[in-house]
Amino acid sequence: MAASTPLSDLRHALLSRGLEGMLVPRADAHQSEDCAPHDNKLAFLTGFTGSAGLALVLQDRALLFVDGRYQVQARHETDSALFEIHHLHDEPVAEWIAQNLPAGQRIGFEPMLMVNSQYQALQNSGCELVALSYDPFDAIWHDRPAPPQGPVSLMPPDISGELTTTKRARLGVKLQELGVDYLVVTQPDNIAWLLNMRGSDVPMNPVPHSFALVKNNGAVEWFVDPVKLTLVPPVWLMDISLKAPSALLARCQEIAAGKRILLDADNAPVAVSFAVEAGGGEVFWQPDPLTFMKAQKNLTELEGYRHCHLQDGVAWVNFLAWLEREAPARAQSGTPLTELDVQAQQLAYRQQREGFLEQSFATISAAGSNAAMCHYHATPATNAAIMPGSFYLNDSGGQYVNGTTDATRTLAFGDVSPEMRRHYTAVLKGFLGLITLQFPKGTQGHQLDAFARRGLWELGLDYDHGTGHGVGHRLQIHEQPYRMAKKVNPWPMLPGQIITIEPGYYLADNYGIRIENQVEIIFGMPGFCRFSSLTLIPIDLRAAELHLLTEQEVAWLDSYHLHVRDVLSPLVEAEARPWLFEATAPVHTRAGTPG
Amino acid sequence: MAASTPLSDLRHALLSRGLEGMLVPRADAHQSEDCAPHDNKLAFLTGFTGSAGLALVLQDRALLFVDGRYQVQARHETDSALFEIHHLHDEPVAEWIAQNLPAGQRIGFEPMLMVNSQYQALQNSGCELVALSYDPFDAIWHDRPAPPQGPVSLMPPDISGELTTTKRARLGVKLQELGVDYLVVTQPDNIAWLLNMRGSDVPMNPVPHSFALVKNNGAVEWFVDPVKLTLVPPVWLMDISLKAPSALLARCQEIAAGKRILLDADNAPVAVSFAVEAGGGEVFWQPDPLTFMKAQKNLTELEGYRHCHLQDGVAWVNFLAWLEREAPARAQSGTPLTELDVQAQQLAYRQQREGFLEQSFATISAAGSNAAMCHYHATPATNAAIMPGSFYLNDSGGQYVNGTTDATRTLAFGDVSPEMRRHYTAVLKGFLGLITLQFPKGTQGHQLDAFARRGLWELGLDYDHGTGHGVGHRLQIHEQPYRMAKKVNPWPMLPGQIITIEPGYYLADNYGIRIENQVEIIFGMPGFCRFSSLTLIPIDLRAAELHLLTEQEVAWLDSYHLHVRDVLSPLVEAEARPWLFEATAPVHTRAGTPG
Repeated sequence: MAASTPLSDLRHALLSRGLEGMLVPRADAHQSEDCAPHDNKLAFLTGFTGSAGLALVLQDRALLFVDGRYQVQARHETDSALFEIHHLHDEPVAEWIAQNLPAGQRIGFEPMLMVNSQYQALQNSGCELVALSYDPFDAIWHDRPAPPQGPVSLMPPDISGELTTTKRARLGVKLQELGVDYLVVTQPDNIAWLLNMRGSDVPMNPVPHSFALVKNNGAVEWFVDPVKLTLVPPVWLMDISLKAPSALLARCQEIAAGKRILLDADNAPVAVSFAVEAGGGEVFWQPDPLTFMKAQKNLTELEGYRHCHLQDGVAWVNFLAWLEREAPARAQSGTPLTELDVQAQQLAYRQQREGFLEQSFATISAAGSNAAMCHYHATPATNAAIMPGSFYLNDSGGQYVNGTTDATRTLAFGDVSPEMRRHYTAVLKGFLGLITLQFPKGTQGHQLDAFARRGLWELGLDYDHGTGHGVGHRLQIHEQPYRMAKKVNPWPMLPGQIITIEPGYYLADNYGIRIENQVEIIFGMPGFCRFSSLTLIPIDLRAAELHLLTEQEVAWLDSYHLHVRDVLSPLVEAEARPWLFEATAPVHTRAGTPG
Repeated sequence: MAASTPLSDLRHALLSRGLEGMLVPRADAHQSEDCAPHDNKLAFLTGFTGSAGLALVLQDRALLFVDGRYQVQARHETDSALFEIHHLHDEPVAEWIAQNLPAGQRIGFEPMLMVNSQYQALQNSGCELVALSYDPFDAIWHDRPAPPQGPVSLMPPDISGELTTTKRARLGVKLQELGVDYLVVTQPDNIAWLLNMRGSDVPMNPVPHSFALVKNNGAVEWFVDPVKLTLVPPVWLMDISLKAPSALLARCQEIAAGKRILLDADNAPVAVSFAVEAGGGEVFWQPDPLTFMKAQKNLTELEGYRHCHLQDGVAWVNFLAWLEREAPARAQSGTPLTELDVQAQQLAYRQQREGFLEQSFATISAAGSNAAMCHYHATPATNAAIMPGSFYLNDSGGQYVNGTTDATRTLAFGDVSPEMRRHYTAVLKGFLGLITLQFPKGTQGHQLDAFARRGLWELGLDYDHGTGHGVGHRLQIHEQPYRMAKKVNPWPMLPGQIITIEPGYYLADNYGIRIENQVEIIFGMPGFCRFSSLTLIPIDLRAAELHLLTEQEVAWLDSYHLHVRDVLSPLVEAEARPWLFEATAPVHTRAGTPG
C-alpha cells in the first residue's frame, strides 16, 4: 500500500462523497492577495507556494493551473508524477473541463472561495458543479495552522479623518441611491476603513479577516471572531451588532426575502449569492461602493501620507548613505554585502522611525540578475552579493500609523555598461514622462500608461507589468480600484487619490531596473490634475544619460531633489548628510550634461 | 382646417394604422454616415439637416433627439411649435419613453433602419414596438427623391491588389473558423472591397448601396439594383448570384433553417435578425470579418495610397503657394479672398491631378472664428474673408483611382497673437508627440490618444473629438474599425493599417487649429510599429514657438520637410517652387530658434 499524500487523501474523501473531482483555488473567502497559512490549501495539496493558482483534482489526474509568472516555479515545487501544470489564462480550467471531461461529472467546489465570474464560466463547462457545505480539508489536513486571530486595533479620528458614524451614514445614502436594501462586504480593507479599525491576521496586511452586512440606513452587522476584539474598547463597538463569521450565510438568507442586496461583482463569494437567492432576495452585482469611498482620501489621510513619507524618506536616505559607504568597501574587502544584509539594515533604519509599524510588503532586495525577476524575494539560497558594475534594485515600504509607503530605487554600483545606461535612461524618461503630466480630471489609467513606456518603446523594449496601483491608508499595498496599466481601467482619476508610478525594465539573467514614486493626484489648472510626489528619496542619476533629458525633465528632477534635500537634511543622521547633498545636486552640476 | 405638414400627414397615417407613434431615425439600411436624399426622412419630416438624429412622433407631441453638436442647429432648422429638441445621448429616447409614456403604447419603427443595440434598449422601455413592413413615408412624401442608382465601376486587380475570388475564398475560411454558415453584409464598403467594385450612390462615398449574403464556401449573392451594373462587364459578375435588394429578407428567411448566420453586431438592421429567426436560424452577432480584412491593406493598396498622396501633395502645394501669394494682396486691395473662393481654387488644383475622381468629403475651408466649429462648411451666408492676423484652416481630401486622402493644415496669415502662437505650438507638439511614437504591435488606439493631447493638457486645454480614424482605399473617409480617441477601441493596431493623426484646438468665436496627416502603420523595431506619413504637405511653422520643440520634434520636422521638398519640387508648378522651398526650410534656419 502506497504512503498516503494530501492528494490521495483528498481523492479518497471525494470518492466517499460521490464526487468525481474538486476545484482547489489559492483563495480565501476575502479573495485576499496574501492569504493566511490556514487558508493555503493549494500549498498543502500541491507544494506550490505562488500567490495565484488553482488545482483540479480528479480520480485519475490532477492539474495545477498557474499563470505565466509561475510556470517554472510550479514545476519546481510540485511532484510531476502527481500534478500536470497548465496555464491559468491561456487554457482556463472551465475550457479544459469542457474539452476533456465527459459531461455531467460531479466536481466539488467551496462556494466561499469562488467569485461569480469563475462560477459562471464553470457553469458553462458541462460538468455538474457541486457546492460543498463542508471543508474536505478539515479531515485530511492534520497539522493545519489555526485560522488567524490577529487583534484588531483602533484608527482614531485624528488619523482616519472621519468618524465611522459619518462613513456609515454616507454609505447608507449611497445604498439608497442605488435602490439597494443591504450591502454584503467581504473585502476586509473595506470593513477596516468603514469601522476605523485595523487588523493583524496576515503580516503586512493590516485588515481584519471578517464580513459585514450593512443596511441602507448605515446599520452594521460585523461577522468577526470576537477573540480579535480583545483590545477594542467596548465603546467603539456600541452601534455594531457582532456576530460570528460562520453566521454570515444564514443571516444573509434570513434577511433576503424581497430585498435587493448588493454583492461586489469581482470579489463576493458565490456562496453569499446562493444564500440571498435561497432567502428570496435579489442579488445586485456591482462594485462595492466602499471601494470608491475608501480610495478617495480625505485631508487628514492625505496629511498622514505626507507625514509617513517624510519618516520613510529619512529611513531611505540613512539606509542609502550607509549602503553607498559600505557596499564598495565590502566588495573590495572580499566580503561583499548581500541582498539579505542590505534588507536587514534597511529594516533597522525603518524601525527607528516614528510611527513605523511593519513592512507594507515583503521587500524586494535584488542584486544583478535576481532583479530581472520582478517579483523576486531574496532567500539564503538565492542571496546574491552587491558588486561593482551592477545594478541593485530595492522595492520596499512601510506600514506607519498614519499611512502606507511603497517606493523603488535602482542604484548603479561602479561603472555600468553603455547598454545598462541606455536602459536606465529609458526607464527614467518614462518615469519623468508620466510624473510631469497634467491631465483632465476623470482621465482613466489606461489612457496615461503609455507615457511611462515611451522611452522603452523608442528602443523597441517594454515591461510586462502595470505602471501604477492604488495604495491604501495603512491598508493594502495594492488597493483597488485605480490602476495605470495597458488593461482598461474604467474608473476616473481624481484629486485625492493615491497611486504609484513605477516603470521598469528587465533583461532576463542580467539585470532589472525600476523607479517608483508614490504620488497623490492633486488639482492642476481648472479641470485638470497633476501628480504630486509623496515619496522623498533621491533618484540615482549616475546611470542616466543626462544629455537625453528634456528641459522639462531636468526641471522636474532639480525641483524634486531640492525639495527632498530641504525637507530631509535636518532629519537624517549626520553621516548621511554629505551623501544626501551629492545625491540631490542639480543636473547641470553633474558630469555628462551638455554645456 | 390647418394646412397639412409632413408631421400632420404622418400622424394621420399612423392613426389609420392603429399606432400611437413612430420613430424616425436619420439612417438608411446601411447605417451610412452620409445618407442619400431619398433616405433622409428626418430632414423631410423636421427640417433638421444634421448627420445624426432621431424623431419620436406621437399624436400630441413630437420630439427631435440630436447630439451636442446639433443642439443649436436643430433649434434653428425646426419649427419649435412642432418639435421639442432633446439630447440624443444625455436623455436617450428609450429612457424618455420609459419615463414619459404609459406602458404598452404602440410605437412603429422601420426594422431596416434600426440596429440591435437600439432595438434592445427600446424593448426595455415599456412601449410596444411595432415593426412596420411598409414605409409610411411613401404615401406622404410626394416629391420624394428617387432611390440612388449610381453606376458601379470596377476596381481592377492592379489597383485592388487581390482578386475578388481569393478575397471570397479567404472570407469563406474565416466563416468556417467562426462556425458560421452565412454572413449577411449590409455595409456597402465591405461589399465594395469584397467584390472589387466601387459605387456612386452618394457623392464622395464611392460604395454601392446594396446587400450581400455570403456562404461559408465564399459563394456570394448580391442584392443590388441591376440598373447600377450597366457599366460592369458581365464577366465580372460571373460567379455572383444577382438579386433585387428587396429580396434580402425573404432570402435570409429561406436559407436560415438550422443555420448559424453572422450579422454585424453594430450595423446590421434588426429586420435581418427577425428574418433569420423567423426562418429557424441562429443569429450570431459579431463584427463583420470583412471590416478587419478590408482595414488591413495589401502592398498594392499601400502603394496606391503613396501614389495618390503624391498627387494630392502637388495639388496642396500649388494651392498653398497660390493662397500665400494671393491672400495678402487681396486683403490689402480691399477684396479679400473668401472661404468659398479658396476651396474652389483648391478643387481646381486637385482636378488637374492624375487619377483624381472627386473630393473625399465636403471641404472644411474656415477662416477666423468659423474654424472654431470643427465641422464647419462654408456657405454663401457664412462665407468669411481671409484676413491678416488670423488663422485659416483647411481640412480636405480627394478620392483618387488608387486611394483616398485626408489632411488638414492651419495657416497663420500675418502676425498672430501670443496666445494663438501658444495654442498652435501646443497642437503642433501633440501632433509631433504622437507621430514620432514607436509602440508595440497590437497596441490599441485609446492607449496612444493622450500623446496628441499632452501639449494642450499642459496648458489646461483639450479638444473634444477623436485623434485619428481609419481611411478607406478609395472607400469611406471614416473607415472602421480603428480609431485613436479617449474612448476604448479594442482592436489591435498593426502594420498595414491606415489612420489619421489630427489633434486640434478650438476657441469658440475666435479661431480653430488642427494639424492632420494621414499615416501608414509600418514595422518598427522587432515587435514594434511606427507611423509613416502618407500626407506630403509642408506644416506651417510661422505660428510655432520653435524654441519649445524638443530635438526629436525638430528632427522629425526637418526630415519630413526635406522629404516633402524632394518629392514634390519636381512636380509642382514653377510659381509654387520658391514657396515650397521656404515652407520646407530646416527649423534652425528660421527666426525664433535658439542659437
